[in-house]
Amino acid sequence: MITDLQDVLSVNVKGMKRSAIRELLKYLGQPGLISFSGGFPSPATFPIDDLKEIINEVMDTEAAFALQYGATEGDILLRTLLVNRYKSQGLDISIENMIITTASQQALELMAKIFINRGDSIIMGLPSYLGGISAFNSYGAKMIGVPMDEEGEDPNIMEAKIVEEIKANNKPKFIYIIPDFQNPAGITMTEKRRKEIIALAHKYDILILEDSPYRELRYEGEHQKTMYELDGTGQVILLGTFSKIFCPGFRIGWVIGHPDILDKIVVAKQAADLCTPPFTQRIAARYMERGLLDPKIKEIIEMYREKRKVMLESLEEFMPKSFSWTIPEGGLFLMAKGPENLDTNALLLDCIKDAKVAYVAGTSFFCDGTGKNTMRLNFSYETIENNRIGCERMGNFFKQKV
Amino acid sequence: MITDLQDVLSVNVKGMKRSAIRELLKYLGQPGLISFSGGFPSPATFPIDDLKEIINEVMDTEAAFALQYGATEGDILLRTLLVNRYKSQGLDISIENMIITTASQQALELMAKIFINRGDSIIMGLPSYLGGISAFNSYGAKMIGVPMDEEGEDPNIMEAKIVEEIKANNKPKFIYIIPDFQNPAGITMTEKRRKEIIALAHKYDILILEDSPYRELRYEGEHQKTMYELDGTGQVILLGTFSKIFCPGFRIGWVIGHPDILDKIVVAKQAADLCTPPFTQRIAARYMERGLLDPKIKEIIEMYREKRKVMLESLEEFMPKSFSWTIPEGGLFLMAKGPENLDTNALLLDCIKDAKVAYVAGTSFFCDGTGKNTMRLNFSYETIENNRIGCERMGNFFKQKV
Repeated sequence: MITDLQDVLSVNVKGMKRSAIRELLKYLGQPGLISFSGGFPSPATFPIDDLKEIINEVMDTEAAFALQYGATEGDILLRTLLVNRYKSQGLDISIENMIITTASQQALELMAKIFINRGDSIIMGLPSYLGGISAFNSYGAKMIGVPMDEEGEDPNIMEAKIVEEIKANNKPKFIYIIPDFQNPAGITMTEKRRKEIIALAHKYDILILEDSPYRELRYEGEHQKTMYELDGTGQVILLGTFSKIFCPGFRIGWVIGHPDILDKIVVAKQAADLCTPPFTQRIAARYMERGLLDPKIKEIIEMYREKRKVMLESLEEFMPKSFSWTIPEGGLFLMAKGPENLDTNALLLDCIKDAKVAYVAGTSFFCDGTGKNTMRLNFSYETIENNRIGCERMGNFFKQKV
Repeated sequence: MITDLQDVLSVNVKGMKRSAIRELLKYLGQPGLISFSGGFPSPATFPIDDLKEIINEVMDTEAAFALQYGATEGDILLRTLLVNRYKSQGLDISIENMIITTASQQALELMAKIFINRGDSIIMGLPSYLGGISAFNSYGAKMIGVPMDEEGEDPNIMEAKIVEEIKANNKPKFIYIIPDFQNPAGITMTEKRRKEIIALAHKYDILILEDSPYRELRYEGEHQKTMYELDGTGQVILLGTFSKIFCPGFRIGWVIGHPDILDKIVVAKQAADLCTPPFTQRIAARYMERGLLDPKIKEIIEMYREKRKVMLESLEEFMPKSFSWTIPEGGLFLMAKGPENLDTNALLLDCIKDAKVAYVAGTSFFCDGTGKNTMRLNFSYETIENNRIGCERMGNFFKQKV
């Protein structure tokens, strides 16, 4: 081994932190542990029988294609089916606006790679998705946090922050937004707010990165238009994924955007992994082609709506009165907040050991290091019964701590 | 869309080039085209029936695991089976020395990400693997080429280059070597040469990145020890992949190395794609567990040995006398060389149109831009018959050009 590894590591890796969520996975195998921590879909949603049938058909009819290298842009059939689905939802796009990535995480990484020089600033919510923060951080981005209210990121504070960065000759490279059922806050941005932020993007000539993994999973209220659709000028890049509505183990996501931007992402993806597995892409395409995705999403919505309901009722019943939480209209997460002096990070291992419940300490989601008294709770993975038992155990644990 | 996209792109992406090979894929669908260009395995090697059986079993017994998110380090069963296989081949490693990546390309990308600051130098052969060059280039590496003879990279020139870089206060971050059946040159490094280069690495305290996708596919001669084994101190990082011996469409590779280095790769991989598809990993693990990999490799060797033989004989028969080529002991490629003034890049599209044969122009593999009269030929993908017909057509084409 060389004498001093630290000496030869890149600046990039020195700034990287292990993901708090990925690190938690180590504990998730413990018997009896109830996990509200990951962003895992319920395994009960996996369409095992349909997949078996489809995979056998793929192996019988197109194995030589599915097991071979594929195009960096992604499987043309899958891209076509996804484009048609978005078109039926009102988006004005064509195949040139769509590429496949190795799930959304890769899209976040590639966005960072093609736009971020060390020290470049980007705008994001306080809190915001941890995987986005990791990807941007790994290229040395300066992350500028904007507080959120119940409608989403505050546009006045956002504008002030943008102006401040422009004055410092560091105009933000993009605004990172998860408008629907935000991870971790569970907040959905109103159409008015979406338009205000798009207007800011136009005024200051800045791209918007719209990360939308949960959009299809709405349990109440009305669907909002995507920022991509509301913008209509190609200034928004929209990310989607199968990870929450189909199978995360397939690792399939996609980017919708202006062809000039996709072109750069494709070149970067060539160096990153050549192509997303053609095998899982073709299976997913045949699954969509059979019309199985939409009924599956309906089924998931019914299941998660009930899980969310039980978690909200159980939090009400068991958590100390000094706690509050968001009430998400969809998605997989809500964010709970304890008294000002609570440190959810310091208490996490105790909660896992004593109460056998795991959550994610909220501070990892705040790019400014705040949020120490917050925690993200996932309600999709555990059974309905465990959502209740977990809240009871967690409630009792926190009652002793506050 | 924003006013000037070029203004906001990162320095990284400005230096990236589209992969010559990936771009060629566009032409590969043309009817009648014979492709010696990609590094594709023959689809006849894909174990379709065995896979069908295994996938049905995985779906029946462990679908909830295989379709879910997985550990960033990779499937523990797959890692264990790979470690045991390497141990049976003489490598002294344990599970802590092994992580899974989204094929070797991702390993090359992550190595670049964790070691390369813009302008940092690395050492590589002239020629060297294009995917490595792309990955290193995408982080702004300064690539220092070392000429090769029939034993591999020249150690005296390599030492001179290292000393030169050290004097310029830019000690190379690592030496990139493909010792077995090098892509593109088809050259295998002798044990003596391996030891000389390892001695240089020790003398100057530099890491070696040993990229080894073809090692198992030897058609004649004796297996050489890996540089990882010959070093024995953890100063070599060894990359492996299923892409040439199983299914490239699964996108599974691995890194063997010192745990301190793997630790950094894992943190970088969290941001890059969270995890390699657990679905394809588990299928691959069950395939190995059934003892199917070794007989499959034997079968592939028999097939490719014959393909190589026919290509070598056909080159001899049909190519102009002013051409020469390497005779690889294994792998998928050989490199041909025309007269000094030949420009294979300028002739490529004509060769595709007129002769209906595709190759890869050699210059993309030379980090110093030389090699204009060279070309890489793949002999694994096409049928034996097409290897002969393709050489005949290509030979006639070049006879008109030189």
